[in-house]
Amino acid sequence: MRAAVMHGAGDVRVEDRPDPKIVQPADAVVRVVASCVCGSDLWPYAAMPATDTGRPMGHEFLGVVEETGADVTALKSGDLVVAPFTYSDNACDYCAKGLHISCRNGGRYGFDGVDGGQGEAVRVPYADGTLVKLPVAADSALLPSLLALSDVMTTGHHGAVTAGIGRGDTVLVVGDGAVGLCAVIAAQRLGAERVVLAGRHSARTDLGRRFGATDVVAERGEEGVARVHELTGGVDKVIEAVGTRQALDTALGAVLDGGTISRLGVPQYEQGPIGPALFMRNIMLTGGASPARAYIEQLLPDVLDGTIAPGLVFDRTFRLGQTPHAYRAMADRQVLKALIRP
Amino acid sequence: MRAAVMHGAGDVRVEDRPDPKIVQPADAVVRVVASCVCGSDLWPYAAMPATDTGRPMGHEFLGVVEETGADVTALKSGDLVVAPFTYSDNACDYCAKGLHISCRNGGRYGFDGVDGGQGEAVRVPYADGTLVKLPVAADSALLPSLLALSDVMTTGHHGAVTAGIGRGDTVLVVGDGAVGLCAVIAAQRLGAERVVLAGRHSARTDLGRRFGATDVVAERGEEGVARVHELTGGVDKVIEAVGTRQALDTALGAVLDGGTISRLGVPQYEQGPIGPALFMRNIMLTGGASPARAYIEQLLPDVLDGTIAPGLVFDRTFRLGQTPHAYRAMADRQVLKALIRP
Repeated sequence: MRAAVMHGAGDVRVEDRPDPKIVQPADAVVRVVASCVCGSDLWPYAAMPATDTGRPMGHEFLGVVEETGADVTALKSGDLVVAPFTYSDNACDYCAKGLHISCRNGGRYGFDGVDGGQGEAVRVPYADGTLVKLPVAADSALLPSLLALSDVMTTGHHGAVTAGIGRGDTVLVVGDGAVGLCAVIAAQRLGAERVVLAGRHSARTDLGRRFGATDVVAERGEEGVARVHELTGGVDKVIEAVGTRQALDTALGAVLDGGTISRLGVPQYEQGPIGPALFMRNIMLTGGASPARAYIEQLLPDVLDGTIAPGLVFDRTFRLGQTPHAYRAMADRQVLKALIRP
Repeated sequence: MRAAVMHGAGDVRVEDRPDPKIVQPADAVVRVVASCVCGSDLWPYAAMPATDTGRPMGHEFLGVVEETGADVTALKSGDLVVAPFTYSDNACDYCAKGLHISCRNGGRYGFDGVDGGQGEAVRVPYADGTLVKLPVAADSALLPSLLALSDVMTTGHHGAVTAGIGRGDTVLVVGDGAVGLCAVIAAQRLGAERVVLAGRHSARTDLGRRFGATDVVAERGEEGVARVHELTGGVDKVIEAVGTRQALDTALGAVLDGGTISRLGVPQYEQGPIGPALFMRNIMLTGGASPARAYIEQLLPDVLDGTIAPGLVFDRTFRLGQTPHAYRAMADRQVLKALIRP
């Protein structure tokens, strides 16, 4: 099969790879119908040291089950399924708590002999515990929004849930990438009255407004913080959907004492300012990597009936062979989120 | 009047200070009946640079109202009152949310012309918003436990509340100081089934057992973490009542993914490990300086009827003139918490 492999920073190639086969009895092989490039894929694209073997890329995909192992009972060949961005057994203590991201037997696509999603097919471990069957046809117009459940929409939802957003809240979302925009959807969906979106790319913030943002702050740094205070008097809840220290500093500047910052962007720093200043202000730091598997079934009805349309974050479609261009276009910010069709 | 003043590390003196008088119409002057030395007083005692003027010490006291300003309506001369460890107007937006520690008009004893509690009398700003009237006589045997509401008991309670402790929980409390011991009381009071206390001073951990600790871990560092896992398999909730990086590392090692760490000890570090490792584990960091004023009325009935007896943390009483000895005894860990009688 053909699949995208990253060999180092800026070096993504579409190559021949072995066709996936059932290895463990809980495996399924899924023929990919649609996958995409994640904002988090851009971190290695910017900085990964060159490797000899390369790393299969992609952790968001949906597709059709082609083959199942002997222990797979909930899925059969021909089922259309969406994959959360990590696999999980849905049976361990963490999965039982809804924390599939910490599954005792879970793992990441593209590592440990598991294929990436940016390819023609994927061997999915713990298929029953991982994949969610979709009640639509493989040519449904809802496919982009269903694909968004793999990561960006379930991640945005995780931010809104862990920030404790409820009816009437004022929320700041830092970042106008796909996750930030999905966090706007999620905040609005959970009843936030006012959603301030911090972002400077007008095409993206316009989509944010369509998703429910009531205000947009284009200024950055201290100016941005000042603007949030001017608009709101400070906010009780922030969803930080970037991962940089600057984004965290914006969150800390905008949040009121006693407020909550939920982080969704993988931190690009090891140490952060959690000393006496944070402590005296009683700011809660929450969020983290989303347990996407736990949320897909919750959000699915809203996607199916059109209540939410996170698929609008996909603003360009590439063929699998064009995947290197998709990376380049996203890295150059010409594309918000690239959908890839094998 | 006589009052304790810190002039630098290790240098506490009891000196003549001006008698407090009403300055603002919301002030009250309180004649101190009992005060104490806080674990947090030991940080400047260890490290404060020498000063010319010195700093009046003490932020925990109870006493009798001697005089009130024209705007004070809820208190009158002769009332026995307890003071939370900061003053607050109980009228601003933060106080309305129960976050009196962030009061827009609040402040700290010993700063900005306000007396410390380790003295004969204190001018208390915003007396109506700060002081809580006690329905007992000034010679009540409950005084130590009522004094504990000033800080250590309300702080321990804040840890249990922000950690979200409820019925059946397993909790780790890191630190066997007065705050850690009060956190044990608070965790038990909110329904925790298992309370593991990490501390190495057997007199203190014995008191912790009396307060409801079900297990004691005397080992420190990695050994301590291993012991907590051995006992519990890891915990969902940790109250960190020390403030050092080692205590935070113990908390991080003992907590399960998706768990909560509530910090009560003022961090003795500016930066902490909140990078990808914490993020991927979905660990929530909460806690902070307690809004004591918000909790005193909640906890008061349990003190009055003897349900909780946090006053047991006071293991020695000093006269005001002996305050320097009280600091020394606490710094040397001969005394858990020193009560001071003017």
